[in-house]
Amino acid sequence: MPVKPKSWETYRVPPGKKVRLAKVPADATDLCDDKSTARKRLKHLRKQINALAETLAIENQRSLLVILQGMDASGKDGAVKKVFTGVNPQHCRVVSFKQPDREEREHDYLWRIYRALPAKGELGIFNRSQYEDVVTLHARGILTRKQAHLRLRQICDVERTWVENGIVLRKLFLHISRDEQTRRFQARLDTPEKHWKVQQSDFEDRRRWPAFQSAYEHILARTSTKEAPWYILPADHKWYRDLAVAEIVLSALHSMRPRIPMSRLDRTRLKL
Amino acid sequence: MPVKPKSWETYRVPPGKKVRLAKVPADATDLCDDKSTARKRLKHLRKQINALAETLAIENQRSLLVILQGMDASGKDGAVKKVFTGVNPQHCRVVSFKQPDREEREHDYLWRIYRALPAKGELGIFNRSQYEDVVTLHARGILTRKQAHLRLRQICDVERTWVENGIVLRKLFLHISRDEQTRRFQARLDTPEKHWKVQQSDFEDRRRWPAFQSAYEHILARTSTKEAPWYILPADHKWYRDLAVAEIVLSALHSMRPRIPMSRLDRTRLKL
Repeated sequence: MPVKPKSWETYRVPPGKKVRLAKVPADATDLCDDKSTARKRLKHLRKQINALAETLAIENQRSLLVILQGMDASGKDGAVKKVFTGVNPQHCRVVSFKQPDREEREHDYLWRIYRALPAKGELGIFNRSQYEDVVTLHARGILTRKQAHLRLRQICDVERTWVENGIVLRKLFLHISRDEQTRRFQARLDTPEKHWKVQQSDFEDRRRWPAFQSAYEHILARTSTKEAPWYILPADHKWYRDLAVAEIVLSALHSMRPRIPMSRLDRTRLKL
Repeated sequence: MPVKPKSWETYRVPPGKKVRLAKVPADATDLCDDKSTARKRLKHLRKQINALAETLAIENQRSLLVILQGMDASGKDGAVKKVFTGVNPQHCRVVSFKQPDREEREHDYLWRIYRALPAKGELGIFNRSQYEDVVTLHARGILTRKQAHLRLRQICDVERTWVENGIVLRKLFLHISRDEQTRRFQARLDTPEKHWKVQQSDFEDRRRWPAFQSAYEHILARTSTKEAPWYILPADHKWYRDLAVAEIVLSALHSMRPRIPMSRLDRTRLKL
């Protein structure tokens, strides 16, 4: 496969590649360094995303699943809003995974994920995902390293099954620096209109930053596969993050080449 | 309550009012007779709908449920697309009710409806609804008149419960004439790109037009309540239909006055 220099595919994690997040610049803007150009291009990309999502729905055979992960305040909600507002909500299914409830805890961690998969024709977006049940639990010391590794193998297995059965999968890690997280947390504390975003647990997890980063490094290295790749997207600049997400999503939709089915109708049976 | 002349509330069905659909013009444009003005106003309404839906989601206490019903080709899908594209899909849940599947048939007709209700903070849209299980079954002769009436009472009961428990409910009947349905069906037959919209059953139901209209008349008269009103929206003109839907939805959102919750944070416990 020829390498496309300076393409958004440069953010893709090659299978098995060791990842050191501290060495990946979170404030990169190497593929577009002008905010206003980025905003214009985003608008253009969104139009194409919306049109292709519509065709995918009409085709009604396959689905696209976009998984968003990242530290608190990395912009998962923001990216959903900025990239997917404009998709016909009839064809789009956003699922935000929170703390599992009682019924969910009475099954394995993949049960609720499986139930939330997009149906044929749907564009599914997971705001957090099965990976939350590895990264958070491991960083908080609830899962041992061995247990975490077992889950990662299970996740690779189940993702392969999904892809084999008609789901195109893209996994996006929104990569922010600790300094940027500090600024965003500070802004939330300083602005009463943003207090609803603040949770005690965010501050506790923040103290475990190195453990979280290291857990993500394992995840990214071990579960970026050819069929279900991870992308590490620089997310310190919100406008660059949104552009990057939109580029990856559009590229995935393009690769699916959805088509409107043309049927031959038996007009003799369809009398007006 | 003072009567607002020429307001969109004129399309509301007063509780207990007898309805004769043949006497209600489906091609009315009495509140806005200029297509380009309507399109501009729709754009403006959508912005407000999107903003209020966002606040409703942040408030996270109540939900709005919009039910869309109408004959085949009345424009339910079109209205969803034209009015709700632009809402952040993270806060919007569109459910299209099709033929019940096996598990659904093993419960009463309200079971799958209850499961699909919008969660707190969500804007829910039902593309068809519990009413389909009255109107279609009755018009096809599967439900007797007595059984249909029983279901309508049950539906009023359950809707009252929903409203008491935090759901604001608006029910929109997209009213088209038989001639307009003929034109739309013809266009679908004539255009290969629209063949995917065509189903044999649509043509069979079309032959039962009077039975369907009469079933809808019963529904509209018996289930338009103060807390869960029906609106009969003229839908022969797509641009007028979209405007009408948007006006009713925005008015409902306004009446809810959603607010961003302001909390006092204990900053001493939230150290950066």
